[in-house]
Amino acid sequence: MGLPPEFLELAASVRNWGRWGPDDEIGTINLVTPEVRRRAAASVRTGHAFSLALPLSEAEGIQTGLLPGRINPVRTMAQINEPILGDREQVCTSDDLVVMGLQCATHWDGLAHVSYGGHIYNGYPADTVTAAGASRCGIHRVRTLVSRGVLLDVARARGVERLDGGYAVTGDDLDAAEELARVQVQPGDLVLVRTGQMSVLHERGGRSRYPAPTPGLSMRSVPWLRAHDVAAVATDTLTFEVYPMERDDVFLPVHMLHLVDMGLTQGQNFVLDELAADCDDDGVYEFLLDASPQPFTNALGSPVNPAAVK
Amino acid sequence: MGLPPEFLELAASVRNWGRWGPDDEIGTINLVTPEVRRRAAASVRTGHAFSLALPLSEAEGIQTGLLPGRINPVRTMAQINEPILGDREQVCTSDDLVVMGLQCATHWDGLAHVSYGGHIYNGYPADTVTAAGASRCGIHRVRTLVSRGVLLDVARARGVERLDGGYAVTGDDLDAAEELARVQVQPGDLVLVRTGQMSVLHERGGRSRYPAPTPGLSMRSVPWLRAHDVAAVATDTLTFEVYPMERDDVFLPVHMLHLVDMGLTQGQNFVLDELAADCDDDGVYEFLLDASPQPFTNALGSPVNPAAVK
Amino acid sequence: MGLPPEFLELAASVRNWGRWGPDDEIGTINLVTPEVRRRAAASVRTGHAFSLALPLSEAEGIQTGLLPGRINPVRTMAQINEPILGDREQVCTSDDLVVMGLQCATHWDGLAHVSYGGHIYNGYPADTVTAAGASRCGIHRVRTLVSRGVLLDVARARGVERLDGGYAVTGDDLDAAEELARVQVQPGDLVLVRTGQMSVLHERGGRSRYPAPTPGLSMRSVPWLRAHDVAAVATDTLTFEVYPMERDDVFLPVHMLHLVDMGLTQGQNFVLDELAADCDDDGVYEFLLDASPQPFTNALGSPVNPAAVK
Amino acid sequence: MGLPPEFLELAASVRNWGRWGPDDEIGTINLVTPEVRRRAAASVRTGHAFSLALPLSEAEGIQTGLLPGRINPVRTMAQINEPILGDREQVCTSDDLVVMGLQCATHWDGLAHVSYGGHIYNGYPADTVTAAGASRCGIHRVRTLVSRGVLLDVARARGVERLDGGYAVTGDDLDAAEELARVQVQPGDLVLVRTGQMSVLHERGGRSRYPAPTPGLSMRSVPWLRAHDVAAVATDTLTFEVYPMERDDVFLPVHMLHLVDMGLTQGQNFVLDELAADCDDDGVYEFLLDASPQPFTNALGSPVNPAAVK
Repeated sequence: MGLPPEFLELAASVRNWGRWGPDDEIGTINLVTPEVRRRAAASVRTGHAFSLALPLSEAEGIQTGLLPGRINPVRTMAQINEPILGDREQVCTSDDLVVMGLQCATHWDGLAHVSYGGHIYNGYPADTVTAAGASRCGIHRVRTLVSRGVLLDVARARGVERLDGGYAVTGDDLDAAEELARVQVQPGDLVLVRTGQMSVLHERGGRSRYPAPTPGLSMRSVPWLRAHDVAAVATDTLTFEVYPMERDDVFLPVHMLHLVDMGLTQGQNFVLDELAADCDDDGVYEFLLDASPQPFTNALGSPVNPAAVK
Repeated sequence: MGLPPEFLELAASVRNWGRWGPDDEIGTINLVTPEVRRRAAASVRTGHAFSLALPLSEAEGIQTGLLPGRINPVRTMAQINEPILGDREQVCTSDDLVVMGLQCATHWDGLAHVSYGGHIYNGYPADTVTAAGASRCGIHRVRTLVSRGVLLDVARARGVERLDGGYAVTGDDLDAAEELARVQVQPGDLVLVRTGQMSVLHERGGRSRYPAPTPGLSMRSVPWLRAHDVAAVATDTLTFEVYPMERDDVFLPVHMLHLVDMGLTQGQNFVLDELAADCDDDGVYEFLLDASPQPFTNALGSPVNPAAVK
Repeated sequence: MGLPPEFLELAASVRNWGRWGPDDEIGTINLVTPEVRRRAAASVRTGHAFSLALPLSEAEGIQTGLLPGRINPVRTMAQINEPILGDREQVCTSDDLVVMGLQCATHWDGLAHVSYGGHIYNGYPADTVTAAGASRCGIHRVRTLVSRGVLLDVARARGVERLDGGYAVTGDDLDAAEELARVQVQPGDLVLVRTGQMSVLHERGGRSRYPAPTPGLSMRSVPWLRAHDVAAVATDTLTFEVYPMERDDVFLPVHMLHLVDMGLTQGQNFVLDELAADCDDDGVYEFLLDASPQPFTNALGSPVNPAAVK
Repeated sequence: MGLPPEFLELAASVRNWGRWGPDDEIGTINLVTPEVRRRAAASVRTGHAFSLALPLSEAEGIQTGLLPGRINPVRTMAQINEPILGDREQVCTSDDLVVMGLQCATHWDGLAHVSYGGHIYNGYPADTVTAAGASRCGIHRVRTLVSRGVLLDVARARGVERLDGGYAVTGDDLDAAEELARVQVQPGDLVLVRTGQMSVLHERGGRSRYPAPTPGLSMRSVPWLRAHDVAAVATDTLTFEVYPMERDDVFLPVHMLHLVDMGLTQGQNFVLDELAADCDDDGVYEFLLDASPQPFTNALGSPVNPAAVK
């Protein structure tokens, strides 16, 4: 059936293919220049630090079995206080291992996570993704991702605890949140969009209601992110984009536009409430943010423990 | 047979049990205060960034099967360009998962990784580590680990490409490297000790020779780290401490002293050569370093992608 | 609080500790002698074969996350039609791997799966189970498990499609089913007890209702199995024994009596309906049964694909 | 470059595509009829049982990292004597899980494991193997595999402990071994070809020398297996077929001929020495053999614990 013309026009208007050369594999992360990192460091004032990651464990995991292989982290023991010399007075070691979906918790979608029309970002063929993983645009290409973070608290800007399920965040919403933040989003920034949806997780039975319906970014927010040349964008939701979808004739449009057209790495399940409360307290919505992925070779995504320092 | 008196005396002299209260689970990481993080941010000058992590993959993994369960990352595909709507013109997704030993590559040893005499750090019973993991001192307690990093390039300070296998790094060596670095290590700093050992990995057959013999920290470096109150320390070796051991009557003494007595989180397999070359070039050996672990609940350790920004 | 006297008396009356020597690790499986296997082979008449195993897959898995680490089989691809010589006209190979709880589907509980009062079967200390697994009574000790199988169709004997949730199968029930089967259970036989509970799985939402409430074996069936000296016993339920329990003051009594006291290996989630229909058709309830576990060294249990030949 | 004409001619001459209908997914296993199973049962005389499987464990595993994802079984603990009621006098449970390559130890190659020229068995397109596994010819289609087993002890027939590395087993060798066995291989039999190669495993450093060079089946044995219409064939080697290969211009020819053309399921790393000694003792080389795979849905292969009863 193909994609509707409105989508294709939008895609063409935001596409970054070739912008950083034909061999580029990291897209908008190219915008994180040394100068941007210096700006990031300069944004540190109080020295308070925030971890924006969900716990990694089976019991606390947020996956409910909807996607094959995207399992919660199962961490098990290989050794428990094993006396290396056979003497418990001397050194004993404990060791563990984990199996997990790389996108099961707080994570980045790598650029190869999604394709459409036979392509991933920069026009690479979709079939560069094989059983060996993504030979192009693997998450390990990112190396580090340290920049200035800006919290765009759309929920607070709209005066609600959390946006309704199905609420489509638009460019106007991002403008309003930017105004609330009293900071100008600049090229290379890491933008964190808060919807408040994660609070659903902490309600009774919330794990099954957290994924959907959900507020989220929409096709109408994509041009804003492109115009501001953000390096990466993350939210406090599981689906990242609004669900149910805005249109019946296109599925996961924001995933396609961000990952495939713009080369914009996107993050999900970022824990933003504690940081947001602090930003509301002191009125400062910018900070140093390190959200470097783990360097899984040829991976489609990566868990991340984003560390914000205000 | 128990531990020799010299070890026990040293242990008593560096022990931090109770220093941060009876309920403390993170030890010297308490030294990373907001002020320390501000100092860290202030150390950024050029904005150049360095990833200090080894690649995470089966083919590039450094484990050779010596320890049960400490397997190299095996990342496999759960979905490859799966057309969600059954139409390849529309969105197709790829997904992967991984199984890995948590301490298989560049990683932090958590404080519960080692016990002796029935105790882990802060005097907690060793049997707080069970099949459910470390109910005390799990790596998730750390939350974030962002501080000033200081590279102590012991190899360069001694005028060699790499220290010999079996070379025991002492406090005097750290003094010499600090002098080379023209920076004073201060409380809360993250200290990276470079031995040059990782270059073995890149030699033919190097994977089997990288673990041992190896240079590394020794009992004679422990008082230095205690006196300087570093928050955490990492090296470019697999065993962390010198091997063969300094004494026949005590095995892994530095592990015991750091993890159990001092509550000093220690890192292994940090990739330091590129960073060291840059430090040598511009003579600046301090930088912002985010080495936050992944928040695996009750884990004994964690992979880490340390991001240094100079 | 300890265990009630009635339980302890029953335990003493069925206990097999020492019966096959102080070093025995397989319990009643000792009863499968060469003569028993010849009897098994002699029971083959039609040559029709039945697999009694549930499918091993993530989508079809019956686990719902109640027990840590007991995950459904996640099978993923390591290679897909990889052309070894780089030429698709020549040989291409595909390869997969799996992660699974060893007791997630149709499986045997090994004798070390359960302990009470500090002991496992034969009086071995419970702490012979460590992070390295069961150094005593590991499932690999079984080697093969081929014997005569006898289907005791308790549901049919009681004239119902399936027994009610909470129905406690007794020795009288087994007598009635044996009478229906017109076969005498003999020492060394593998007894399959059909309750009909597995049909719940195929109902809408059945996966969550299958575990409990459930019919199952009860303390009142234990003496029967002991008196008949069966080699192993399996059912078509997840919990194996009746749930809710018969008494408030003892939990999983049948597990304790079978595994710890009798050394009776017990199986769960055996698929019995097709076999039962065939037995009802021809009136023959005995067959050759190979239910050899997979030889996981020191494992607590094992998946099994029981093959019955009538 | 394609395949040489000699191979293509041989392939055409043994091909079973369509023989059991256009929808067949199990190939020669169709030959295991009820009558064959009755013959199998009738071959039981002494009742002695043999497990033909290697142990499943990390320490004892035979994989050395040559193939991605084909890892030795890593079995770890999820629970160790966990007191369900919080009371160690009452029931305590231990639980484990495993991650393993499905073809890492004693296993069957499923028919979809290999393709060439764009096809798997029965002419199904090779791309029926996807990230979701083998939608055609998955190992779960086999259900049960119980038949008469016949040991063809080629090593003994040639008067050696083990065949030399690189020795290509031919149809004449199989004739000689059949003569030694004094049994006629019949349609539906499971044939076990003993080379003696597994004894290499038990030598010092044997794990690395076991895979190759190795004796094994060759193109010159394929017509014999086709003519005798065996249901499945297994050996005591890792590569199954002779290595180094017989010809430079075709790689893994026997894999292609068996799996793709004949639909002949083939087994590797079968432990045959104890069984062979028994056969030599009593002169009886036939037995009941259950080698049913584990029913992994859509899997490319399966571990197996073959149980032979003489």
